[in-house]
Amino acid sequence: MMPDGEALTIIAGGGPIPSYVAAAAAKAGRPVFVIGIKGEADQAIAAFPHEFLDWGQLGRLDEILRSRHGRDLVLVGSIRSRPDFKGISLDLATMRSLKDILAIIIGGDDDVLTGAIRFFERRGMRVVGAHEVATDLVVTAGPLGRVRPGRAERRDMETALRAARAIGAIDAGQAAVAVNGRVVALEAAEGTDAMLDRVGALKTARRVKWEGRAGVLGKCAKPQQDLRVDMPTIGAQTVEAAVGLGLAGIAVEAGRVMIVDRAEAIRRADAAGLFIVGEESIVGAPW
Amino acid sequence: MMPDGEALTIIAGGGPIPSYVAAAAAKAGRPVFVIGIKGEADQAIAAFPHEFLDWGQLGRLDEILRSRHGRDLVLVGSIRSRPDFKGISLDLATMRSLKDILAIIIGGDDDVLTGAIRFFERRGMRVVGAHEVATDLVVTAGPLGRVRPGRAERRDMETALRAARAIGAIDAGQAAVAVNGRVVALEAAEGTDAMLDRVGALKTARRVKWEGRAGVLGKCAKPQQDLRVDMPTIGAQTVEAAVGLGLAGIAVEAGRVMIVDRAEAIRRADAAGLFIVGEESIVGAPW
Repeated sequence: MMPDGEALTIIAGGGPIPSYVAAAAAKAGRPVFVIGIKGEADQAIAAFPHEFLDWGQLGRLDEILRSRHGRDLVLVGSIRSRPDFKGISLDLATMRSLKDILAIIIGGDDDVLTGAIRFFERRGMRVVGAHEVATDLVVTAGPLGRVRPGRAERRDMETALRAARAIGAIDAGQAAVAVNGRVVALEAAEGTDAMLDRVGALKTARRVKWEGRAGVLGKCAKPQQDLRVDMPTIGAQTVEAAVGLGLAGIAVEAGRVMIVDRAEAIRRADAAGLFIVGEESIVGAPW
Repeated sequence: MMPDGEALTIIAGGGPIPSYVAAAAAKAGRPVFVIGIKGEADQAIAAFPHEFLDWGQLGRLDEILRSRHGRDLVLVGSIRSRPDFKGISLDLATMRSLKDILAIIIGGDDDVLTGAIRFFERRGMRVVGAHEVATDLVVTAGPLGRVRPGRAERRDMETALRAARAIGAIDAGQAAVAVNGRVVALEAAEGTDAMLDRVGALKTARRVKWEGRAGVLGKCAKPQQDLRVDMPTIGAQTVEAAVGLGLAGIAVEAGRVMIVDRAEAIRRADAAGLFIVGEESIVGAPW
């Protein structure tokens, strides 16, 4: 089948999601072109029309964008390191845009993403979310696997999601862990993985105690989060960490959190007796 | 001078505060008796009429309490470890109260304190706060030392206190750190010291960046916290950690946070150019 939908350009950082989004777009009949960021994007993007670009090649980037027949652009995948402009050569267009780029890079995390969106919008592109192209990336309401929370787990779900929501409202973090009705960890700059490691250390030191599977990791988008470029994410790794910790489950805000490696994540959760649940009611809940 | 105020009994855990409270009461003319918990209380309590008791000696505790001429009781000082009933001998009264005691010990942290208060109230005592006896333990509004926050520091103060307040409202923690307008750490079960260590690690890893002195540790009581037995505390150690981290200051909720080693804490803060501020406005602020 010849792709006949609107063309889609994907700027790809690391990890499997860029290819996943490209495949979803191709399957929907959209002509796809993937621009892989050198040193970040996975080789798997080579399964699609693509080109690898360095941070310094904004001239070439402009050429590609101008050659596209659609305005839609997805920015997706992880960026492990900020561009090192000392180590790369800059083309002319990059040098002309250097002031813009520096403003983007010098800002905080949120500003980098907002800056990147502005940068592409100024070039006539429309930034859309990866989850708008590959809609099954989004966690929907209800249990994802075979395991369902019991009554004690539902209380920890509510406590963890309420905490995640509260720290999102102050723009501090997205995730929290509650065990036996008590919030034991709140995420800020350290990120979800480091927070889970901390809970493990507290458990080992018997500063937080539980037996068997108990406790819930809750994760929500911040109210002001731009989901097009920065959607909270869980995946098989998150499940693995939760299983290792002895948590009973993971609860996320339905519709506003992504799950990557969905099948693998659910398979591991089912195997370990861990639930993964999308909770709808927390959007706009009166906390 | 013979003490002529109402008698005060102090049950002393570890650290310098029990002696400080005893001295304040004695100075106010109150007959003081200190019951030191063996393995926890400092030898400095021996400067006052005192007796060291083991966890198992509730019978002797009852005798002492019955012999006192006043009902006022202060529970103060740190408890590093929960009683190990295997290693101690229990007197008859302890065995009779064992069900009560187990209920206290098995509960969460808040329940232990609530349980302890109930335990003493049932014996006719009235539990009062250490800060009600030694009123200068409480941080009052305004700067404590010579250093005052500038405009950027005031913004971080507000951000940190707002975050501390938000996590207190969900009964999760008391403290937060904000740097350059961004919340970088939120305290839950790990406690304030471990949270400060984490910020140090994030700074070393350049996950959070700042130069010179910047950022503020904020600390508040939870709205539901029983300040008689569980008042948030800062001290010279907190100042030392904040100085080591390169923070610009410490902001606490005025009237609801204690400062121990006050003179030493202020001396070190002044020497390092760090501010310590009590903020009044956050009590009942409409966040």
